[in-house]
Amino acid sequence: MIESKNNEKIKYYRKLRDKKYILKEKKYIVEGYHLVEEAIKKGVALEIILLSGKEYKTNLNTIYVSEEVLKSISLLETPQSIMAVVKLEKNDILGNKIVILDNVSDPGNVGTIIRNSVAFDIDSIVFTNNSVSPYNDKVIRASQGMIFHINIIEDSIENIFNKLKEEKIKIYVTSLIGKDLKNIVKENKYAVVFGNEGSGVSNYSLENADENIKIEMNESCESLNVGVSSGIILYEFKVK
Amino acid sequence: MIESKNNEKIKYYRKLRDKKYILKEKKYIVEGYHLVEEAIKKGVALEIILLSGKEYKTNLNTIYVSEEVLKSISLLETPQSIMAVVKLEKNDILGNKIVILDNVSDPGNVGTIIRNSVAFDIDSIVFTNNSVSPYNDKVIRASQGMIFHINIIEDSIENIFNKLKEEKIKIYVTSLIGKDLKNIVKENKYAVVFGNEGSGVSNYSLENADENIKIEMNESCESLNVGVSSGIILYEFKVK
Repeated sequence: MIESKNNEKIKYYRKLRDKKYILKEKKYIVEGYHLVEEAIKKGVALEIILLSGKEYKTNLNTIYVSEEVLKSISLLETPQSIMAVVKLEKNDILGNKIVILDNVSDPGNVGTIIRNSVAFDIDSIVFTNNSVSPYNDKVIRASQGMIFHINIIEDSIENIFNKLKEEKIKIYVTSLIGKDLKNIVKENKYAVVFGNEGSGVSNYSLENADENIKIEMNESCESLNVGVSSGIILYEFKVK
Repeated sequence: MIESKNNEKIKYYRKLRDKKYILKEKKYIVEGYHLVEEAIKKGVALEIILLSGKEYKTNLNTIYVSEEVLKSISLLETPQSIMAVVKLEKNDILGNKIVILDNVSDPGNVGTIIRNSVAFDIDSIVFTNNSVSPYNDKVIRASQGMIFHINIIEDSIENIFNKLKEEKIKIYVTSLIGKDLKNIVKENKYAVVFGNEGSGVSNYSLENADENIKIEMNESCESLNVGVSSGIILYEFKVK
């Protein structure tokens, strides 16, 4: 059992809570039984960190730690007794069905969009440089572990639009001034851009997209939550 | 300006943060500029409570209070400088398009469902006895003020099902074992039941509903957030 917060392994785990190290080491940490199990199921868990005294059946290497050490690694106010070190798997292959997060900033919304994307067969989610990090602890939790099931790409909006245009994938943006979702032509290869909760998609996206869509709604309601609108739009593209 | 937390008016406002008094007095309090403006727009604001030194243009009676007094009324960690006393308007008329919350417990999800319901032309939302209160401060905030735009009913699931059956309104429940949303017949008069985040709809609802629907999704994804699934289902009923 490791009881010292200054143990080299523990110091390394703490570094893995920082985006810079996550990308360098290609590893990150997830907390709690549900996420640990999802990571194991998906084959991305590398190592288990377990509170001393607890038991967990696994073939993976298990590191037992004291409560104080566990707390020093955790980002939660009340840490659960288990964590896993997970390998960051990603590639640059976009696929045919893509979601682009253009400055989406709320981790809960991003987690919900990840969950919706897995539900409706999206191949890749692109995080633009100004969106919240996909490896943010709150994003991972809100995704309910669905982040292990989808390819994550981080790139600039300009680069990604250029790639999509080269591959002739139609780019749809969502805004309050677009065409009715029900009536637009839904291609088999598509990228859908979701924008910031307050200010919507960027001007670059608006100007360079192929089609601008909106969800028709009662005039009393100004807008939907971006997690909800992404669910409706991705569902419509799937079942069209 | 009122500077004493023991002032009778201030004591009364504090009571209005409690569900029992809200229902008795038919008044509740909302916090922050956005909600105050939505309440005024909808004609339900009765009185403004404003931090002394701030200005707010309104024909409504305005009570100026000290920061300490404001804090004593607020449920927020960092109170905004404005609140409104709002009249609780509701009636028992169900309408033709109804949402039923069967033990939905997360205030953020309930707020999102209220917002979706206004967006997609629902007449009434029924809160069953075991759901979170519609006048919970977090619900009101998550609804972004949309709660002022829809009729709220609180009743038992048994009573409401009996009324719906009398009025020949078809009852749909959502579960993981229903028929594909895309293929079910969507009536013009409908009630849709959404269940608890963990355990789904109650057995009573499952057994007594007319139709059981589910959203087809990728098998990697166990379920959607109930805010998202309500958005998809209510959209589909609207545009069918």
